[in-house]
Amino acid sequence: MDQLVPETRVLAVASHVVYGHVGNTMATFVMQSLGCEVAALNTVHFSNHSGYRQLKGTRATAQEISDLYQGLCQSNLTDFDVMLSGYAPSAAAVESVGAIGIDLQQKAESKPGSFFWVLDPVMGDQGRLYVNDDVIPAYKKIVPFADLILPNQFEAEVLSGIQITSLATLAEAITAIHRIYSVPHVIITSMQLNKLSQSGSTPPPPENFLTVIGSTIKSNGSPRIFRVDVPALDCFFSGTGDMFAALMVGRLSEAVSDTGSDLRATKSWVSPDSVAAVDLPLAKATIKVLSSMHSVLERTLESRDAELAIEVPASSEQLSEEEAAKRDYLRRTKAAEVRLVRNTSVLRDPKIQFEVQDWRKEDLPKHLQ
Amino acid sequence: MDQLVPETRVLAVASHVVYGHVGNTMATFVMQSLGCEVAALNTVHFSNHSGYRQLKGTRATAQEISDLYQGLCQSNLTDFDVMLSGYAPSAAAVESVGAIGIDLQQKAESKPGSFFWVLDPVMGDQGRLYVNDDVIPAYKKIVPFADLILPNQFEAEVLSGIQITSLATLAEAITAIHRIYSVPHVIITSMQLNKLSQSGSTPPPPENFLTVIGSTIKSNGSPRIFRVDVPALDCFFSGTGDMFAALMVGRLSEAVSDTGSDLRATKSWVSPDSVAAVDLPLAKATIKVLSSMHSVLERTLESRDAELAIEVPASSEQLSEEEAAKRDYLRRTKAAEVRLVRNTSVLRDPKIQFEVQDWRKEDLPKHLQ
Repeated sequence: MDQLVPETRVLAVASHVVYGHVGNTMATFVMQSLGCEVAALNTVHFSNHSGYRQLKGTRATAQEISDLYQGLCQSNLTDFDVMLSGYAPSAAAVESVGAIGIDLQQKAESKPGSFFWVLDPVMGDQGRLYVNDDVIPAYKKIVPFADLILPNQFEAEVLSGIQITSLATLAEAITAIHRIYSVPHVIITSMQLNKLSQSGSTPPPPENFLTVIGSTIKSNGSPRIFRVDVPALDCFFSGTGDMFAALMVGRLSEAVSDTGSDLRATKSWVSPDSVAAVDLPLAKATIKVLSSMHSVLERTLESRDAELAIEVPASSEQLSEEEAAKRDYLRRTKAAEVRLVRNTSVLRDPKIQFEVQDWRKEDLPKHLQ
Repeated sequence: MDQLVPETRVLAVASHVVYGHVGNTMATFVMQSLGCEVAALNTVHFSNHSGYRQLKGTRATAQEISDLYQGLCQSNLTDFDVMLSGYAPSAAAVESVGAIGIDLQQKAESKPGSFFWVLDPVMGDQGRLYVNDDVIPAYKKIVPFADLILPNQFEAEVLSGIQITSLATLAEAITAIHRIYSVPHVIITSMQLNKLSQSGSTPPPPENFLTVIGSTIKSNGSPRIFRVDVPALDCFFSGTGDMFAALMVGRLSEAVSDTGSDLRATKSWVSPDSVAAVDLPLAKATIKVLSSMHSVLERTLESRDAELAIEVPASSEQLSEEEAAKRDYLRRTKAAEVRLVRNTSVLRDPKIQFEVQDWRKEDLPKHLQ
């Protein structure tokens, strides 16, 4: 029997690529594999992801995004339990996506907990913005309507206005995001704690580990922070943020239902203050999500290595050094595409490999200790 | 352990809808469920399928379709084993899709059987064309490059120029399609044999049955026709043709590999003349395809009935009779959306329910008896 999450109808708004797995082309299949019914509204239609350093295709305009949603509205096709929103190609497109989320929230107002918006504020990474400047204020306007946001370190810094240099400033950034945007759940999806310039009182994980930090707000506005350390694999994979978000949709829906309480009918699925950080549905979901991801990526790495071990047939044309390097780069990028379709068992039935840790009081900013 | 078909990389070129399952939004997930790696190039991006009688969205131009394919080519992302092509929104778009199939065939020319094109010539149904007139000649130009085509009765009549009124004219139409277009495999996806005005010597199935007729060409150009009768369900489902095509991609790939012969390395996977119609990989695949489909549609029907049994909350607005009828129509259409994500076990592991029948010699046209 298949291990499926509770029935969950998801509107997924993100990019589509013909080849490979990023954006909706990652998230749709991942959520479907868990048993979610997914409606995919695509914000771009590209041949491949940008990791190839070249692509062709089209971007949806803000109007086209709104029109598609209007199409759903006019035929009463908006009975979504969850919206997952990712990359949008312009500030106006971010506003259109935001208007969809806000409309769905409003439609669900009389039934608390019946709609939940997971927002990935895609703006940049590693200190670099890869969208136009005007996308930042557009996100800042819509984040207050989201239930869970999934920034990376850079995006968390942009949204909080706090530079993350220590465990205390990390906790401060999360607290600020809760406070400024009233967003009840936050996960910073991949931190390298050992690269922080100032240490905290908690020892950082070994060098090749990534850390995921999450928090669900308490009724007084303070955070409930937990942490999960995961060994990093020695390869750059595209679409892992989208895989995280998609698995989170299914697993959070499951964890909330598993509480057996009326959490599912509580606004934004915020657990009572009595629930400790490590016992949050968000924490339980994170463990399952990361376990699935780690297995899929381990298998991807094996397949990549096997693919790259095959000798390349000599080209009939004479390639310049530059052309040969480009061909090799494209081949390596392709080989690292995440392997999904033959690894659905580990998506559906993860072997739990990681544990959730509480956040030490000493690593909270002073005013929260 | 999952029951997966052999690894098969598919380029799927068809429509995308946000809500529901037709075109690529049906075929992608179905093929992925069987374990195929699918690259989906979307020819339209609509809010929903046309069965709702209203929709919003955009159509890709012929140039946009070509550009996306050029994007794949420039990054060496064209290592497809199979192409599945469906609806294209204009004659020029059909030509663009055709050019992709032809290019992929040419790239594979030195390795017979390494690429296989399944073409669904979407033009109309029930005697009615639902594309522009100029789409017909566009299809007639590209069908000769396909390996398997999947017309319905109307499309088979358009392509063959033969009106199907009896078992003999049905066989004649298939023979003509083999002959005119040199297309090695044909399946007419849903015939109502008992509605033919003239009977043949084979008794038709009971009234509520549909018949699927297939044929693989012999070396002398004559057909090898088989037939499978399937009970029809009392509901109109959208996207069933796309489900058939998608399952066929996986199951034909599997059946060809299962022969253990070098069929997989034979141009167009055409079995030796010694293989009887009922023993063709195409026939074996058809049985599995129809068994999966029948189970999925039976479960869909149950879910639909359960959904429609729920009382509709009274509308806050006063609806006119016309508005109420429209609302009811939309609701019934939505309820009949095919249920895929929670029924993957019957896609992957069908319980064989039907049998393939040989075509009687007396029901062949005179010159082939």
